[in-house]
Formats: sequence, C-alpha cells, structure tokens
Amino acid sequence: MNIYTNPQKSEWKALTERATQNNDKIATIVAGILDRVRKDGDKALRELAREIDGVEIDSLEVSDQEKQEAAELVSAEVKEALDKAYSNIRKFHEAQLPKEVEVETTPGVRCYQRPVPIQKIGLYIPGGNAPLFSTVLMLAIPAAVAGCPDVILCTPTDKQGKVAPAVVYAATLCGVRHIYKTGGAQAIAAMAYGTETITKRDKIFGPGNRFVTMAKQSVSVSEVAIDMPAGPSEVMVMADETAKPEFIASDLLSQCEHGADSQAILVCDSMEIADKVQACIEDQLKGLSRTSALESSLGNSRAIVMDTKEAMIEFANAYGSEHLIIAMDKPWDIAAKITAAGSVFIGNWSCESAGDYASGTNHTLPTSGWAHSYSGVNIDSFIRKITYQELSQEGLKGLSNTIITMADAEGLDAHANAVKVRIK
Amino acid sequence: MNIYTNPQKSEWKALTERATQNNDKIATIVAGILDRVRKDGDKALRELAREIDGVEIDSLEVSDQEKQEAAELVSAEVKEALDKAYSNIRKFHEAQLPKEVEVETTPGVRCYQRPVPIQKIGLYIPGGNAPLFSTVLMLAIPAAVAGCPDVILCTPTDKQGKVAPAVVYAATLCGVRHIYKTGGAQAIAAMAYGTETITKRDKIFGPGNRFVTMAKQSVSVSEVAIDMPAGPSEVMVMADETAKPEFIASDLLSQCEHGADSQAILVCDSMEIADKVQACIEDQLKGLSRTSALESSLGNSRAIVMDTKEAMIEFANAYGSEHLIIAMDKPWDIAAKITAAGSVFIGNWSCESAGDYASGTNHTLPTSGWAHSYSGVNIDSFIRKITYQELSQEGLKGLSNTIITMADAEGLDAHANAVKVRIK
Repeated sequence: MNIYTNPQKSEWKALTERATQNNDKIATIVAGILDRVRKDGDKALRELAREIDGVEIDSLEVSDQEKQEAAELVSAEVKEALDKAYSNIRKFHEAQLPKEVEVETTPGVRCYQRPVPIQKIGLYIPGGNAPLFSTVLMLAIPAAVAGCPDVILCTPTDKQGKVAPAVVYAATLCGVRHIYKTGGAQAIAAMAYGTETITKRDKIFGPGNRFVTMAKQSVSVSEVAIDMPAGPSEVMVMADETAKPEFIASDLLSQCEHGADSQAILVCDSMEIADKVQACIEDQLKGLSRTSALESSLGNSRAIVMDTKEAMIEFANAYGSEHLIIAMDKPWDIAAKITAAGSVFIGNWSCESAGDYASGTNHTLPTSGWAHSYSGVNIDSFIRKITYQELSQEGLKGLSNTIITMADAEGLDAHANAVKVRIK
Repeated sequence: MNIYTNPQKSEWKALTERATQNNDKIATIVAGILDRVRKDGDKALRELAREIDGVEIDSLEVSDQEKQEAAELVSAEVKEALDKAYSNIRKFHEAQLPKEVEVETTPGVRCYQRPVPIQKIGLYIPGGNAPLFSTVLMLAIPAAVAGCPDVILCTPTDKQGKVAPAVVYAATLCGVRHIYKTGGAQAIAAMAYGTETITKRDKIFGPGNRFVTMAKQSVSVSEVAIDMPAGPSEVMVMADETAKPEFIASDLLSQCEHGADSQAILVCDSMEIADKVQACIEDQLKGLSRTSALESSLGNSRAIVMDTKEAMIEFANAYGSEHLIIAMDKPWDIAAKITAAGSVFIGNWSCESAGDYASGTNHTLPTSGWAHSYSGVNIDSFIRKITYQELSQEGLKGLSNTIITMADAEGLDAHANAVKVRIK
C-alpha cells in the first residue's frame, strides 16, 4: 500500500483512478456470442456450454428434483444464516417501498405517481468454486418485495452439469421459480433476446466477469435495462485516532480478497494511523488464504494522509467509493457531508462484511466512481414510477391558455389544436 | 393509418415495433466529435460550431446582459404561461421527494437510506426554429427541487450566436446559473469530459437529434450517467364508445407533428371508432401547419381493433407506450391493469398536450418500449439513495455467526476475519 501525504489537488485525479482494462478483444468475443444466441436460441446455449465450459447441458432448467437435492446438500448452519440474512434484508427493503403520490396541482388537474413493478426480471449469478449465493438474496428479495411477478435466474453449472446447491436453495427461498443452467455472456444474451426456453426480460441484474459485464453493457443500449455499470469492488476507510488499526486492516483485506483488481483506500489524518494499519495488514495477511488476490490488489491500494477533516471529506467525495467505512469521532457528522458513496458503514463495529451479508442493506453497489450518479440496488431498481393525470373539463379550461400559448411559442400547432377541439 | 382487426399474437411483435435506423455512419461522426472535444476542450467547441453550424462563438457562456435581453424579448403571455406551468410542475415534483428510511433490522443493527442530490447536473436543450423551452422546465425544476447544487445547461445558438430567449428565460427562472452556447454531440462531450469552461458532469439529461442521442449513449458507457435511452416520441390512445373521435384525432396528430419518425397508435374496440377517428384526422389535418412531419408519421401509425378490453390492455402493455391516453369507460380500472407506460392520461379531457406543458407531470418519458423498465424523469432521477448501517458491539455479536458462516461458505475468509478481529 503506497502512502501519500497531503497530495496536491493536481494529483487527485490519479489518486482517485481505478484500474482500467482494454476491452477490445472481449468486445469481439462477446459480440459473437450475442449473435449466436440471438440466432440459434437454446441450441446456441447448449453449444456454448460445451465449447467454453466443456459441459453437456441436458435440460436447461433446474428441475424440481434438483431443487430438492440442493436443499438436502445445504448445511443446517448455512440455512440458518440464510434465514437470518433474509429476514434483515427483507425488513430493510420493505421499508423502502414508495407510496403513491397524488397532487391537485391546480383546480380540476390531478397528478399521480404510482410505483408499478417491472414485470420480467432476470438475475445473473456467476459460477466458480464458491458461487456468491449471498447475491441471490440481494437481488431476489427486493424483486419479491417490489412485487415483480416473473423473476428468473441464470447461472452456470459445474463440470457435472449441476448448479451450486446454495444458489438453488437461496433462489427457491426467495421465490424465484425458474433457474436456468447457462452462464457467461450467453446467459445475458438469452435474457436480452429470449430463447425457446428463456423468455426475454425487461431488466437484468447481477455481477459477472468481464465477458458478462461487456454483454450487459452491449444489450443495455437497445434491448434491455441493466442494474448499473459494473467495475471491480472497492472500499474506502476514513479513520482518525478513534479508529482501531486492527479493524481497519481487516476491512481493507476483506475488500482485497475479492480479486486482483479490487481496490482499498485508507484516508486518515496521521501517518501514525497509516503505519499502524500497514503493520496490522502484514500481520493479518499471514492467516488468510486468498494470497494471490490479496497481494495483487494491495498493489492497487493507497493510504492518503490529510491534515484536515475537510480535506478527508473532499477526497472521499471525489473518489465516490462503493463502500465507505467512517471510523471517526462523530461519524454521522462526517456522513452528513458525504455526497457520493454506495453504502456507508458507521463506526468501529460496522465492518463491510456485515453489509455484504446480513445487516439488511444491499451489497449490489455502484463502483468505479458511479456512486456520483447511481444508487445501489434498492426497491426503486425493480419498479417504474408511472405518472397519471386526470383533468376535468374545468381543469382543462383553466390550463388552456397556458398550453396554447406555450405550444404556439414552440411552433407546435397540433398540440394547441388538441386543447382547442376540446374547449371550443 | 393502417387498420388491423384482432391481430394474431404472432403479428404483435411487428405491430409493437418502432421505426429503427441504421446508426453506423452517425456513430463514426460522433466518435470523431467526442475525441476532438476530449482533446481540445473549448477550442474544439468553437471550431465545431464554426464547421457544423457556421457560427462564431465568442464567449461560450451566456452573459448576464444576454440574460436581461432575453427576458425583455419573451412576451408577457409566454412569461405568464411559464409561471403557471412552473407552479404545477414544481408542486407535483415536490410531492415526490422521498423520505429517509430507518429500520433496526435486528437488535443493535440500524439501517438507513437517505436521498442525496446528484451534485453536477448537465441539461441539454436542442436548438432549431422553435426551441423546446418547455423541456427546460421539465428538467431544471426537478433538479432544483431535488437540491442539486450545480446545474448547467448547454444549447446551440442561432446563426447570430444567440441562444433562444425563451430558453434563457426559462433556465434563469428555474435557477440554472450557467448557460453555455454549444450544441450537438460536442455539447454532450463537453459535459461528459469537461473543458476549460464547462466542468465535467455527473449526469446528463435532455433530448436531441440522432447525433446527440448517439453521443449520450457513447459517454454513458464509461463517463457519465444519462437520463434514459432516447427514441422518437409516441402516443397510444385506448378508446371505447365513450371516447370522442374528434379528441382522439387531435391527440394522434399532436404526437405526429413532432417528426417524421413519431408514432401514434389507436387501440379501440370497434371498426366504427377507427373509421370515425380516421375521418376526423383527415378533417383536422387541413388546418395544421407541420404537414410534412404529420404525413410521414401518420404512415408509421396504426389502428388496432380488438374484440375485448382484455386484449386491448394486453396489447397496450406489450407496446409500453411513452404516452397512453385512456379514453374509455371507467378509465382508472383500465389504468390499474397497465404495467408499462411512461405517463397516462385519464379520460376525455386529459389531452397529451396538457402533460406536455402544464399539468405538472414530467414530459421526459421512456420511448421505444423502454417503459417496460424505465420511469420518466422524476425526482429520483436527480438523487442517489445512499444506504448507511450502524452496528453496536452487541449488534455485530448478534450477527457474527451469520456473517462468518456465509463468508466461509463463499470461500471469503478475510470477510469472516473482519468480524473475528472485532468480537474476539
């Protein structure tokens, strides 16, 4: 971890930068995959599973029997943990449900805004050695709370053609009815265009590797909405003398284990803290297993020492971190000045992994500075707010001059005419 | 307008299709413009104004004196109309302001969700003979209501280097402090990358021609958020025997005058209505001025006659119209079954132009079927919802088994470690 003391403003751009990657090769491969799935549907999904993953997929959908088997394979402890996390996540997302808005803006003119669930939701969960079943909860629970009637999940299988039991169990727990055995860019293509088995979705959610990310980005231009732009995960810890270096080190490391391109940033007000945290990191590293990811991503990581709290806050807002831990005196006063962050962790006991799994907040959050403009996944992500207006005859009369004057000034006489034919 | 009676489901895909255009040439031109602005900043903006529009831009920003001149050039009637529209739009958008959410999900674990305004907003308003100053209200009012501290507007000038007075007046009325004289793809580039004069934005809003649309789409991948994907405007009118054919015709025509690629769809339950509406269209056409746009877009327009209300609703949901007028008996019962629409107009007196200008609802709405997944512009468009969690020591202890079990099952031992170092 490189340490920077009171960096000049001119250096901030470099210090807030994330790792970027050249995606031209991936774009070409993904375009080919999207094209094949669009043309050949299920057949392409089976062929691609064979070519890319070396797996023969018989039935694309996880059967009821497979769901039962999965439930038997998940341990009682994991089930109990899932139940507890489920309960907290559900409570927090239920509290977010928006109310209907109704206003009579002027006599006889009533305007309404109503939340309406998105109908066809597609969730993507990556595979790998330890599939992230916690993400199933983070996506499928708000979809259920929002009332989305048709939620499916796609995820790759292992070499034996089986989906990870914890993913199947968590999805079923959250009311996902259809789970499909397809992964990578081809799964995104299936949900964007539809195949014989998988019906076209209105919005696609979920993390993935660079192929999945590129595929989501491509289809989002003209086919289907996506949750948000994706990038490597990141955490920023803001610390003063009230912080515990040991805790901070553990949070930075828990971020770094996600992958070689993860980033952890410490912003603190003394070199002493930075040095202590650095020592704790070296100490804790010895007991952790994902050494290669940890060592690479520590290389992307930085400690910024600032003289003032104001400068710390300004830097945090310039960075716009996915996760922001505030381990400082009066943390809520600091939090009130934060204008860009995905999820904020207040005080010494609020470790990032609490929010990753079980506090109740969502862990699907904007990365790469997108926290300046995007929210994390929340209930709004699964609804549209449709507006309605109802004018009485008198209401329209009262507004007629306004509408006709504006329409005429914009040169749109058919717009004015729609009022005139009604009030003549 | 072509008439289709009880079309088979297999025909629905074609009947819900919008005009699509090949954008390859435009993409190349836009990429070049983006590149020039990214490299040369203000200089490129001035050069492009000269090359594309034949205008010499002296100072890029509209001066205070120009703002005064603009205010003098706008008529008292237009000012009065703007005030009335402003008041209604402001009332409806103020009512949408979300509340803070606070939940103790489990003892000692408090989760919060707070709306925080997006800091740097960029609005784009196209030029042309009759610039759409109403769109200034639709974007700048919610930005102000949301509390966005830094809102700018870019718009092209006329050949004399002047911005349309009504645009300047409306922007100033809404509290937009900086108005810049730049249009087209180069304006989008300036807001996405920043130049010497125009600072980089967090989110860009506003309509535009195909170059602007392509530029917004390009920069949205990696630079800046945008309001929504854009396409030609459209209306669907659902009508039964309680509708007035004359009114329906005027609404279809007011949509069609927007441009040759606009689309108007009538869905009704008898051939009689379709025929009457067709006759009224021919009659009203004679009195309207934008003949070329009207005639072209009527060619894209369709009347669908369905035997049942259920089929009408199903078709409306399959189409997902930007504007949906329900001129039917018990219109709210129909509206309750609509799952995809931008803005809905209830009953015979709620013409689309009321919502376009002055009822209070927003007129920046999802087109091209994006109403299946996007809301129109509303207060949410100008805020992020940041989540926060604060765990007490006991709160973390209570969740520790849950977090550690899930982290271990996902193979993320540094995540588990962040809990262990705190509760040991």
